[in-house]
Amino acid sequence: MLKSFFPILTWGRRYDRQTLGSDLVAAVIVTIMLIPQSLAYALLAGLPPEVGLYASILPLVAYAIFGTSSALAVGPVAVVSLMTAAAIGRLAAQGTADYTSAAIVLALLSGGMLALMGLFRLGFIANFLSHPVISGFITASGIIIATSQIGGLLGIKSDGHAMPELLASIFANIGRINYYTLGIGLLSLALLLWIRLDLRNWLERFGLGKGVAKVIVRSGPVFVIFLTMALSVTFDLGGKGVALVGDVPQGLPVLAVPHFSLDLVEALALPALIISIVGFVESVSVAQTLAAKRRERIEPNQELIALGAANIAAGIGGGYPVTGGFARSVVNFDAGAATPAAGAFTAIGIAGATLLLTPFLAVLPKATLSATIVIAVLTLVDFGMLKRAWSYSRTDFAAVAVTIAGTLLLGVEVGIVLGVGTSILVFLYRSSKPHAAIVGRVPGTEHYRNVKRHAVETIPGILSIRVDESLYFANARYLEDLIYGQVASNPEVTDVVLMCSAINAIDMSALESLESIRLQLSDMGVRLHLSEVKGPVMDRLIGTEFLDRLEGRVHLSQHHAMQAATASRQDNEPPEAALAAKL
Amino acid sequence: MLKSFFPILTWGRRYDRQTLGSDLVAAVIVTIMLIPQSLAYALLAGLPPEVGLYASILPLVAYAIFGTSSALAVGPVAVVSLMTAAAIGRLAAQGTADYTSAAIVLALLSGGMLALMGLFRLGFIANFLSHPVISGFITASGIIIATSQIGGLLGIKSDGHAMPELLASIFANIGRINYYTLGIGLLSLALLLWIRLDLRNWLERFGLGKGVAKVIVRSGPVFVIFLTMALSVTFDLGGKGVALVGDVPQGLPVLAVPHFSLDLVEALALPALIISIVGFVESVSVAQTLAAKRRERIEPNQELIALGAANIAAGIGGGYPVTGGFARSVVNFDAGAATPAAGAFTAIGIAGATLLLTPFLAVLPKATLSATIVIAVLTLVDFGMLKRAWSYSRTDFAAVAVTIAGTLLLGVEVGIVLGVGTSILVFLYRSSKPHAAIVGRVPGTEHYRNVKRHAVETIPGILSIRVDESLYFANARYLEDLIYGQVASNPEVTDVVLMCSAINAIDMSALESLESIRLQLSDMGVRLHLSEVKGPVMDRLIGTEFLDRLEGRVHLSQHHAMQAATASRQDNEPPEAALAAKL
Repeated sequence: MLKSFFPILTWGRRYDRQTLGSDLVAAVIVTIMLIPQSLAYALLAGLPPEVGLYASILPLVAYAIFGTSSALAVGPVAVVSLMTAAAIGRLAAQGTADYTSAAIVLALLSGGMLALMGLFRLGFIANFLSHPVISGFITASGIIIATSQIGGLLGIKSDGHAMPELLASIFANIGRINYYTLGIGLLSLALLLWIRLDLRNWLERFGLGKGVAKVIVRSGPVFVIFLTMALSVTFDLGGKGVALVGDVPQGLPVLAVPHFSLDLVEALALPALIISIVGFVESVSVAQTLAAKRRERIEPNQELIALGAANIAAGIGGGYPVTGGFARSVVNFDAGAATPAAGAFTAIGIAGATLLLTPFLAVLPKATLSATIVIAVLTLVDFGMLKRAWSYSRTDFAAVAVTIAGTLLLGVEVGIVLGVGTSILVFLYRSSKPHAAIVGRVPGTEHYRNVKRHAVETIPGILSIRVDESLYFANARYLEDLIYGQVASNPEVTDVVLMCSAINAIDMSALESLESIRLQLSDMGVRLHLSEVKGPVMDRLIGTEFLDRLEGRVHLSQHHAMQAATASRQDNEPPEAALAAKL
Repeated sequence: MLKSFFPILTWGRRYDRQTLGSDLVAAVIVTIMLIPQSLAYALLAGLPPEVGLYASILPLVAYAIFGTSSALAVGPVAVVSLMTAAAIGRLAAQGTADYTSAAIVLALLSGGMLALMGLFRLGFIANFLSHPVISGFITASGIIIATSQIGGLLGIKSDGHAMPELLASIFANIGRINYYTLGIGLLSLALLLWIRLDLRNWLERFGLGKGVAKVIVRSGPVFVIFLTMALSVTFDLGGKGVALVGDVPQGLPVLAVPHFSLDLVEALALPALIISIVGFVESVSVAQTLAAKRRERIEPNQELIALGAANIAAGIGGGYPVTGGFARSVVNFDAGAATPAAGAFTAIGIAGATLLLTPFLAVLPKATLSATIVIAVLTLVDFGMLKRAWSYSRTDFAAVAVTIAGTLLLGVEVGIVLGVGTSILVFLYRSSKPHAAIVGRVPGTEHYRNVKRHAVETIPGILSIRVDESLYFANARYLEDLIYGQVASNPEVTDVVLMCSAINAIDMSALESLESIRLQLSDMGVRLHLSEVKGPVMDRLIGTEFLDRLEGRVHLSQHHAMQAATASRQDNEPPEAALAAKL
């Protein structure tokens, strides 16, 4: 029991010098990668840069205690930062103390919700975020995030958390470009792109080992930060109108729980829930992908508890909502992280950086951070999903398209809710108009298939219908129309066999429809039979009036049903005998 | 085309003297029944009594033109009256002109929505109101309606559209009972109950024919109205504090469309939608039940148009939302109504009654109308549904129970939305954790069933799993865990056959899960086969990477899959050969 809540008790016991070595190497590399990302994502969330660093300390320790993934690297991520900005941007102005404390409350709320969902084992809720929806959402978020940084790269003001406002504010201010800012922005973009695409080959051509080259590439963004800080000081860019990060409080965060009002909690509850679910889905899918590569398993409900603890820790430690990041976790995995302890070592690294870096951050141009964000989110954009969904099914395409359009035009929260709503509605709509087939026997077998797709044998006077859906309230009336229509247009029919192999449940509404079908058929002198009724469905039907009054029989298999119906037609067997023989 | 929008063009052509006779008899009986009900339901809706009469004139004519049911009697009904009171009670005070015009706007809005739903053939939306939900809703509404009339029977004030407020206001005013009102109320209740339960036997014992006795019983409530009016005048009950109907404008309604604000439309849009759907479901189920008895068919989408036209007519003619009433339609049917023209004749009857009655209504005690309402709604209450649902399935029971509790405690709109929401959530939850079975062969057949329920034969090394649900986003991850778990606990397994007879669809999320299952199994040296994949599902799968990379085969039947897997195990057939033979 204790061990399932504290996985650290299991892996901690096996911890040895070799694991420590692997974890330390991974921690160093992730720390180097995380420093510029923490600063940049805090900026994206509209928060002071140190908040990003704070969000990369305690949450990592909390995840190390509760988490089940050895590779997951927790911290600020792009999508959740955008969602944070959208949620708290409505309640307070950026740069105010209220804004920062709203972010902290959001982290606490989201942490509390995640932990409760984990304790009550509600992880399945996340399954309702379908893959097309989450993929469309991340693509749209990536576009919004990249667009939101255009202002920072041009040195103009831009506002908004959805495309229409963002584009409007960019165009409104397009005349006020600061060319020094633009220069720093383009330089940063170019360097970061070159580092990502080309530096490694270049280093290897110069004879560096693969491992060393990899580490240098990953510390590239930190060098860009140092370079632009140096340029900023040398050319007094601040004096030339380039936006700099400005003074940042020194030292580590003071642990505290902000005092907050019920109004604030109410206003943030829904955004916190959406952030929790989106963050969980992103995190758990990275964790699962990486775990599968090592034949490990992660425990989704425990992951909820771990992410909950991480977010509560983020709130207490002055940070904002965090989750497992994709790129960062892959790096952590590649670098050899063997246990969640790697995350705790990363936290120590970030704490050290916070102490060392904060005095110098004042001169860092914000445009460098904007460039870091743009390069990081470009990998999120995947329009291929639209094409794959279109070619696979129009309903999946509808869900992706609605999610992307909704997120771009109306913002992250509305977008994801529309996407989930669409995918559920499409599922319900489809199941309310089920596919059905008249079936016949595949010659030489006991197998029965759709007469329209296979060359099958049917028996005149016996109509076999296979309905391809569970029978429930939404399709109950449809079923009545279907069977009534088929029988009315085939006057020679004396027996209807409803093949139930694809009927996984029958609810009360459908049971009433079946009874009314039985009555209608009975009035027309037609007997209704069932075949291949599944165990769980049969358990329900036993003892119902419908079954007691059924003139026909319930047959184990469709083949048996057809044999019996044929025999009974030949013998002109009265319904009473059939009733007596019923199951 | 024209004929499908105007069914009157079809039945009007066949209209003859005999049909006219039947329709006229039915119209007289329904008119007599409708007069007290119109007055009473208007009171229930918080409207002046003449509004009830107005709602029983033009809407009936409109339905006669557009309707497809020969027996449906349209007009004010109890549940919709309660819903009207709840919707407009928030916006205006009873007795004001604003209140009445809000009711008219509600009728127009609801009429417009119904007509649009009919034109766009959206009748299937009503299928999402499951039978347990609508039944629970009507039971709870009946209880609320009966309780809301206690104040009228005691002569005290009572307010509210849900039980807590209603009971609170009754207890707050319980000391102010007017005993004259109570006397009239109890007398009316006793007479109405006696008329309903006993009068017919009594008349027949006195030698009256069955037909005459029936007509007298049905006009009973009108006699009670005349009797209490006479008592009211004789004993000057108005002067003794008994609430009377009071002055009513004479004559027929003036046709008009009220001028209304956008705010009003916005506030009434959601209630109008709920009233439309509930009214439609009630109406169409009565119409279908009665149509089936005469081997007729009604056209649900045309019914939407007809009810839409009826409600627009109600709005223009000074009425409030109407729909087809259950008891009234049964009476219409019994009395021999042969075409929708019977409704038009009823409208003439009510118009005549409006001209004749209005001068006398001033002296009618409201307690008589309260008694009429109580007697009428007692038949709506059906707690048996709770018991039937409990014994059939816990999920259906949950839907009924939530609907009843929600409606009683939180009101009609919240109640029905909670009920529909619960039934949909329960359906989604169930399909997110599908039933699955390991299957084996029923000896001597080609039929495969659950090893836990049947004595079946299995083949060592071959695991056949039947998943009883369409594979979609909500259960995709569950499927992965299921198959991975089964294979991991059976190390001797070399082949997994996924029997797809109950899989009616595979969406993109599930396809990705199948691919990841295939990969996992492949890593473990296990081949994945599919069997009994339905045509529509196979159409999707063809051309996907999953199918192209599948090591196993797709077999027409489970039996064939087992034969092939056995043969291939014996031959030690390499996966490449299986790939070549696929499909």
